[in-house]
Amino acid sequence: MNGRLIVFEGVEGCGKTTQLQRSQEWLQSLFVAKSLSGSLVTTREPGGTQLGLGLRELLLNAEVRNGGADATKEEMKFSQPGPLTELLLYAADRAQHVEEVLKPQLAAGAIILCDRYTNSTIAYQGYGRGFSLDLIDQLNFIATGGLESDLTLWLDVDVEVGLERTKTRGVVDRIEQAGLEFHERVQQGYTQLAKAQPQQIVRIDANLSAAAVQEQIQQILVQRLTEWGLG
Amino acid sequence: MNGRLIVFEGVEGCGKTTQLQRSQEWLQSLFVAKSLSGSLVTTREPGGTQLGLGLRELLLNAEVRNGGADATKEEMKFSQPGPLTELLLYAADRAQHVEEVLKPQLAAGAIILCDRYTNSTIAYQGYGRGFSLDLIDQLNFIATGGLESDLTLWLDVDVEVGLERTKTRGVVDRIEQAGLEFHERVQQGYTQLAKAQPQQIVRIDANLSAAAVQEQIQQILVQRLTEWGLG
Repeated sequence: MNGRLIVFEGVEGCGKTTQLQRSQEWLQSLFVAKSLSGSLVTTREPGGTQLGLGLRELLLNAEVRNGGADATKEEMKFSQPGPLTELLLYAADRAQHVEEVLKPQLAAGAIILCDRYTNSTIAYQGYGRGFSLDLIDQLNFIATGGLESDLTLWLDVDVEVGLERTKTRGVVDRIEQAGLEFHERVQQGYTQLAKAQPQQIVRIDANLSAAAVQEQIQQILVQRLTEWGLG
Repeated sequence: MNGRLIVFEGVEGCGKTTQLQRSQEWLQSLFVAKSLSGSLVTTREPGGTQLGLGLRELLLNAEVRNGGADATKEEMKFSQPGPLTELLLYAADRAQHVEEVLKPQLAAGAIILCDRYTNSTIAYQGYGRGFSLDLIDQLNFIATGGLESDLTLWLDVDVEVGLERTKTRGVVDRIEQAGLEFHERVQQGYTQLAKAQPQQIVRIDANLSAAAVQEQIQQILVQRLTEWGLG
């Protein structure tokens, strides 16, 4: 596989979507300036495929029905789908995404910018909801066949700051239902992951302005592109 | 858990659906005759829950799109969903079925007659399609939390006889696309499973008439109900 997989991770309100978009535009102009031939792909999980869009709909609706994103495994009411079913549907979404998008694009040499990947499941379902990390590792491995990101940008925002941002933006559906404690457990998850894999997961201070965050990201990307022989 | 889980397994045309129905009727009259208080539940996989019905639809349609039930993992075209995604969607269906139907009904003391369970995935996706048996065991364990059947009735029909029956019945959609070789691999799977778990999986000669097959099943059920203190 010649391409590279760059994943954007973080809690609600960390600015992932904005930063991924800005990074895409910046990389695009860099590719033009340097006459690089590879293609740039932006995608996301869940919902990066046609099937995934249907599953994403099912999952987010279910989350609301189950008492919000901050419901623990025990609190959830096993309406449809239950928490374990959800976890397996996320894995199905990921398996489809890996086979249909990530693997072929990487084989074709693309630089992929992906909004969430395996670490989201560890942080949200593992640390946040309390599923065993072994179980999640197993499922992540099954779904991806071991395909890991080449670089994960963890947009580390204070949980309160992030939640405040989502309110300002009017994104209040799932988020307003999600408590501070839940998001702090998720944050804790990202912190542990970044500690365990310092080369693969790079922490970005996402409390700063969007421009300052993008600047940090571009610095990292320039470094890595050079290491990968693409700079 | 006080109830009992009785699973009906076998290749296409083995008579599962008919025999499950007849067994239900016979057990119902037996319960009435003996004034037994437990309830009888009939269910199936995939599609034993509301969510599962949607997934079942998705899976069976996909199977047709992917070249039929006899397509090997390699032959399948990764239209939507791909073979691994399918396997994970089956697991999601099973997880939901276990949580929503099997566990609560068993806890309430029901006798459950279930059309297909974990062994179908081993026989069809493992032996038939060529997925690793370790992977399938892992997924079955994750989806069921280790919940096993108390008794599995394997309706062992010659593959040719079974396929001929499905043609007579006019069930030609998926089945006509499924080759003899695929079904022989599935049959091989059931044979191996029955050899490995002679106490849990009981072979029934399903080449005989429906009445003669039902007679064998009733003999087994009488034995087991007595062992379980329900006879």
